Amino acid sequence: MGSMTTRRWVLAERPAGIPDDKTFKLEEQDLPAVEDGQVRVRVTHFSLDPGMRPALSRDTYVGATPIGSLITSAGIGIVEETKDEKLAVGDMVTGGFGWQSGLVVKGRHCVKHNPALFKGKVTPTAAIGILGIPGMTSWFGLKNIARLKEGETVLISSASGPVGATAGQLAKLMGAGRVIGIAGSKAKCDWLTAEAGFDASINYRDAANLEDAMHDATSGGADIYFDNVGGEMLDAAINVLKPGGRIAVSGQLAEYNLDEPRGIRNTLPFITQRLTMQGFVVLDFVREFGPAAMQMAQWINEDKLLYREEVVDGIENAPAAYAGLFKGENFGRRLIKVS
Amino acid sequence: MGSMTTRRWVLAERPAGIPDDKTFKLEEQDLPAVEDGQVRVRVTHFSLDPGMRPALSRDTYVGATPIGSLITSAGIGIVEETKDEKLAVGDMVTGGFGWQSGLVVKGRHCVKHNPALFKGKVTPTAAIGILGIPGMTSWFGLKNIARLKEGETVLISSASGPVGATAGQLAKLMGAGRVIGIAGSKAKCDWLTAEAGFDASINYRDAANLEDAMHDATSGGADIYFDNVGGEMLDAAINVLKPGGRIAVSGQLAEYNLDEPRGIRNTLPFITQRLTMQGFVVLDFVREFGPAAMQMAQWINEDKLLYREEVVDGIENAPAAYAGLFKGENFGRRLIKVS
Repeated sequence: MGSMTTRRWVLAERPAGIPDDKTFKLEEQDLPAVEDGQVRVRVTHFSLDPGMRPALSRDTYVGATPIGSLITSAGIGIVEETKDEKLAVGDMVTGGFGWQSGLVVKGRHCVKHNPALFKGKVTPTAAIGILGIPGMTSWFGLKNIARLKEGETVLISSASGPVGATAGQLAKLMGAGRVIGIAGSKAKCDWLTAEAGFDASINYRDAANLEDAMHDATSGGADIYFDNVGGEMLDAAINVLKPGGRIAVSGQLAEYNLDEPRGIRNTLPFITQRLTMQGFVVLDFVREFGPAAMQMAQWINEDKLLYREEVVDGIENAPAAYAGLFKGENFGRRLIKVS
Repeated sequence: MGSMTTRRWVLAERPAGIPDDKTFKLEEQDLPAVEDGQVRVRVTHFSLDPGMRPALSRDTYVGATPIGSLITSAGIGIVEETKDEKLAVGDMVTGGFGWQSGLVVKGRHCVKHNPALFKGKVTPTAAIGILGIPGMTSWFGLKNIARLKEGETVLISSASGPVGATAGQLAKLMGAGRVIGIAGSKAKCDWLTAEAGFDASINYRDAANLEDAMHDATSGGADIYFDNVGGEMLDAAINVLKPGGRIAVSGQLAEYNLDEPRGIRNTLPFITQRLTMQGFVVLDFVREFGPAAMQMAQWINEDKLLYREEVVDGIENAPAAYAGLFKGENFGRRLIKVS
């Protein structure tokens, strides 16, 4: 039968700055009975997403997370009880399950494990990682927003994170001439160039002048800045873009914990260098996810595309592991394994 | 024979803030002899361009204006001596003549007056105004950068200036649903709605909260922000753009006199609202100027497109008239008539 209760993290108070002990509260709750069209899912893993940080503090396009309500995230789980004819007990499913150990949910809000994708070197957790929202963000950010062209130079921030690392490798596979990653430690930078096929890397904690370091590493300028960070790093990158340069705004990690946004100072180069800055929500491309995921799974199995996951054991560790995302602790996609 | 000397304004020292008495110096100089392929031009009018302000202080895409060198601008003049077979004495020509009363210049750097354009209600000075760089900036900013679509709502800053006033009227002629202009006085705002066909206007000096005023005037949001100003006004406009909104960065008037750029704070909405901000240099579209100018001249003669010019008499008044552009003094294109 599995568990008829769920342990769930809810929002206790709106954080100022990086979320801490007071931000979240762990509750235990009974699950409701399963009704027609629903399934009961035991969650095995859920993701820790920096992108949901703004909704903890203020209204966003998905609304503000209400006090007392479940923290949102992608999850993987096993169907334990079903009143949906398309799903059987034991099926592996993914969905927006939140930071919790179990739930009753409509079957049509679950995506059933696709065996064509998760074989060979592709782990099941890739479903909410490189083949989920982060990986799709890399793919569509490069293809549809930055409109990468053969031979171009691509500069990527937060490059050892799940979006950045995938974006850099995809850029090379899609024909970029030169790919440079920015990360926050020597180990991360070494991994980018030694393992992930980046042409160069910049350790932003070491650089005396970030803009100079970007100029050097790009060999004179970038065509594309794939931006996961915003703020000062974005300002520096603007000054390194070539005429006609594009900024794909994928994330703004440096902004999420600020009470007052910092933004950018450099708007004049938008005119003089003919720059374009475009933001996007990857769910807008959901109908095209299938073929992109198939191609990426193939590249993973051919050892052309690597991904890193950090699995943190225990639902009780979610808040600290989440806060660590904003301190540059993580190296790859960070997931919670629900013990 | 005309004059064999020129009176010319050169850069005396780099301004901090709005240019003042010390910024420019008036010199008198002999003109060189006319050589093969050259003409001598007596300048009748030249333009005062806010867009050249950054080059007075720092390096830009056209380089920094060197101390002691001529201030750049568009001009209109009469050929007084010619060694170019395509130009005759008495021809009216335009070109990048600078703030001066005469010059010797290559004939192929002059554009000969096109009688098909300058007839009926189209004055010769329109050649360096609505049918010159400012008007072309409006046209290509809307068509090629903002990619205006039928029925969309367009918000325009510095809307009574030469670029803004033309952009607003062109937007209506190109099928916009609603056009709102922002200007700095009641007289300017009244002109926008009573004469220039704008649907609404905002006096930014009067608005208690600019963002609220933008929301009200746009009836709930804009698809396009045609930006001539940058800074705080751009930050407010970002919060008023609808999903998929576009910002055409035509000018950044509020930035030009700052030692340290101000920029924008609001980058998060680029993601949540899927915004695009794109800058441009109108000279990139120079091969398409001809047909655009013909269409605009026709609309002017049909009374569908108005333009305003302020002609200031006397080359000695150029610096004060120029500084006034940054104080919101001007109402339409400001030109110097060389007495």
